[in-house]
Amino acid sequence: TINPDRLWDSLMEMAKIGSGVAGGNNRQTLTDADAEGRTLFQSWCEEAGMTMGLDTMGNMFARREGTEDLPPVYVGSHLDTQPTGGKYDGVLGVLGGLELVRTLNDLDVKTRHPIVVTNWTNEEGTRFAPAMLSSGVFAGIHEQDWAYGRTDAAGKTFGDELQRIGWKGDEPVGQRDMRAFFELHIEQGPILEAQGDEIGVVTHGQGLWWLQITLTGKDAHTGSTPMAMRKNAGLGMARILERVHQIAMENQPDAVGAAGHIDVYPNSRNVIPGKVVFTVDLRSPDQQKLDGMKARLEAEAPEIAADLGLGIEIETAGHFDPVTFDEDCVRAVRDAAKRLGYGHRDIVSGAGHDACWINRVAPTAMVMCPCVDGLSHNEAEEITRDWAKAGADVLLHAVLETAEI
Amino acid sequence: TINPDRLWDSLMEMAKIGSGVAGGNNRQTLTDADAEGRTLFQSWCEEAGMTMGLDTMGNMFARREGTEDLPPVYVGSHLDTQPTGGKYDGVLGVLGGLELVRTLNDLDVKTRHPIVVTNWTNEEGTRFAPAMLSSGVFAGIHEQDWAYGRTDAAGKTFGDELQRIGWKGDEPVGQRDMRAFFELHIEQGPILEAQGDEIGVVTHGQGLWWLQITLTGKDAHTGSTPMAMRKNAGLGMARILERVHQIAMENQPDAVGAAGHIDVYPNSRNVIPGKVVFTVDLRSPDQQKLDGMKARLEAEAPEIAADLGLGIEIETAGHFDPVTFDEDCVRAVRDAAKRLGYGHRDIVSGAGHDACWINRVAPTAMVMCPCVDGLSHNEAEEITRDWAKAGADVLLHAVLETAEI
Ligand SMILES: NC(=O)NCCC(=O)O
Ligand SMILES: NC(=O)NCCC(=O)O
Repeated sequence: TINPDRLWDSLMEMAKIGSGVAGGNNRQTLTDADAEGRTLFQSWCEEAGMTMGLDTMGNMFARREGTEDLPPVYVGSHLDTQPTGGKYDGVLGVLGGLELVRTLNDLDVKTRHPIVVTNWTNEEGTRFAPAMLSSGVFAGIHEQDWAYGRTDAAGKTFGDELQRIGWKGDEPVGQRDMRAFFELHIEQGPILEAQGDEIGVVTHGQGLWWLQITLTGKDAHTGSTPMAMRKNAGLGMARILERVHQIAMENQPDAVGAAGHIDVYPNSRNVIPGKVVFTVDLRSPDQQKLDGMKARLEAEAPEIAADLGLGIEIETAGHFDPVTFDEDCVRAVRDAAKRLGYGHRDIVSGAGHDACWINRVAPTAMVMCPCVDGLSHNEAEEITRDWAKAGADVLLHAVLETAEI
Repeated sequence: TINPDRLWDSLMEMAKIGSGVAGGNNRQTLTDADAEGRTLFQSWCEEAGMTMGLDTMGNMFARREGTEDLPPVYVGSHLDTQPTGGKYDGVLGVLGGLELVRTLNDLDVKTRHPIVVTNWTNEEGTRFAPAMLSSGVFAGIHEQDWAYGRTDAAGKTFGDELQRIGWKGDEPVGQRDMRAFFELHIEQGPILEAQGDEIGVVTHGQGLWWLQITLTGKDAHTGSTPMAMRKNAGLGMARILERVHQIAMENQPDAVGAAGHIDVYPNSRNVIPGKVVFTVDLRSPDQQKLDGMKARLEAEAPEIAADLGLGIEIETAGHFDPVTFDEDCVRAVRDAAKRLGYGHRDIVSGAGHDACWINRVAPTAMVMCPCVDGLSHNEAEEITRDWAKAGADVLLHAVLETAEI
């Protein structure tokens, strides 16, 4: 089993970089803090005897050699965080992978297959939509040039920012042959903690649609414009948000819906909003429900807009279908949990993960551990040392089985 | 009558300072552009033989001497604009006052009472709430120290910014004795144009409540947080916006309601908003309706919040009661319009104006001219040269009657 104190110390050390305002982190992708976190991770990997690869999307690949020239077993997740994110979302999967290698070094265990610990660039998708951008390019879902052209709120592009922070590599993206990919991640939901299980064996992942809606009305004075003459894009946004909620509630229990991002223009107290841009997040593990919710919103939002005299544009800002993970990899995770005596259950991931894209190009599975109150994407995100240990232990054993001693 | 081309040229010259992105202006209060606009106005006033006074709130007072030592007749409005504002909102009243003085100079007409052309600081209230801040301090409605402490979105204070742009004067605010105050302004609503009248004789002004509402929920993952566990401050905001609309509609025709300012936190696509801060703008010319709408929202918004498990805080970010302007001043405006043969009608101002506060300390009235489609607080705000001329002519004649030749 792994060394839980060493893993915890590394988590706390990484959390010092881009620390947030309320105990969490703001280490958004392709910021200076992201670069600093990468450098720290690289130094740890080199201390552990690994060599670092870096591709043209900034994906990092720290390799521990195997005894034979076989496709490596990959582990890892992401080091970038939400603007007000936690210390574990993504980080646990990367540093859990590092801890696994450190443990093998301690025990002087060699594997037939090499082991590679990965940090995927821009998993969160907050600064540059969509989420899981670089694992998506790796898996051939997105074109690299399209990814380079993604812009943040300040108009900076992904490609320029990757260059600026000095983490654009030479290795062509997506050329790696993988024996398997295992991602350890916190659950970000309440199920494991509520059931008293330490391990979630992730069999499926929810699908997602991010629909970016632009409503266009007419800037006008809030005082002197009669109600009948208004084209209030803010009111249109309000009605669409209520409809999103309704659609999600009518598809219970297998659906969620909300908008996290809302920009109002010109955002002045005495100007009726002439434009609102917001992103609706719809998810379900059920393909038919997922696409049904999207189709319904695409049909009904324009009616709501038309009713208020508003223009509407709906663009896809992110999408993935529900995922079924690889049977053998899932079994390796389940067997490891069983062998180690951890309480475990099969679960569906509510969030998207790099594993969802890598699953398209290699046998993939995920290990989850609980987080307190199911809370994530919040600086107060918390896990226990025991949960971190359980997750990393199961990761170690699933990898050992797959990489073969 | 005034010189319409000279007035128009000055309007266009001023509009070059802090020009917007779509033909209008972004000359927000206490910005470098505001300072530049003030300097230009001062130079024009000095060319016209006036002397400039400047008080501790940055209010500018350009004085043309009278033949006797009597309280001056004041005219003017404001040079600050919305972030995406028009070229005439406020500016017409200041430069119309300047044109009036230039015309008297041309004709070598002396008045018994001095005439003072005023530029009131921060009328718009966008950068620093509330609106009409400095005329409010002048009229004794707000304490100067409280005004100095008002902050913009970046946390800068009014006091520091006034100092920074170099337009904080030495004259104590509010010490001036006024024979009367006349404010020329564009209507910012559709009535005059629709009725084919060139002049609005403003008898009353609508009252206003700005209620800044802070909803507090819980940041959480949009994907992995079950619907039943959410505390979605964005959904609460949506429901309150709908309620505001409903309250305004139920109080027709004498009421309006909307929210122009909405900030969502952390504003990330995959984070359920944990906090939303927005400002509701409720107005009516009817005191009972105005206060009734406010009371209803204050009673019902907390119910909406509680229903979603949200915390709520409601603060007053601006308020003025409905205004009745001075009978004699209103008659002077009406008589001037009549004498000059302009189509005119009595109207109620839908917007708040510096005149609404000055009316508390001096006999006050307003002259309005139409604007195209009633559109204001929009870069596309437009007026005709004839309308500008009509407004400035009526201002001139109302002032001449009051300042006495
Ligand atoms: N795990 C995680 O929070 N990923 C971000 C992508 C998503 O919104 O699901
Ligand atoms: N005239 C004008 O737009 N004033 C701003 C204050 C208000 O919102 O009424």
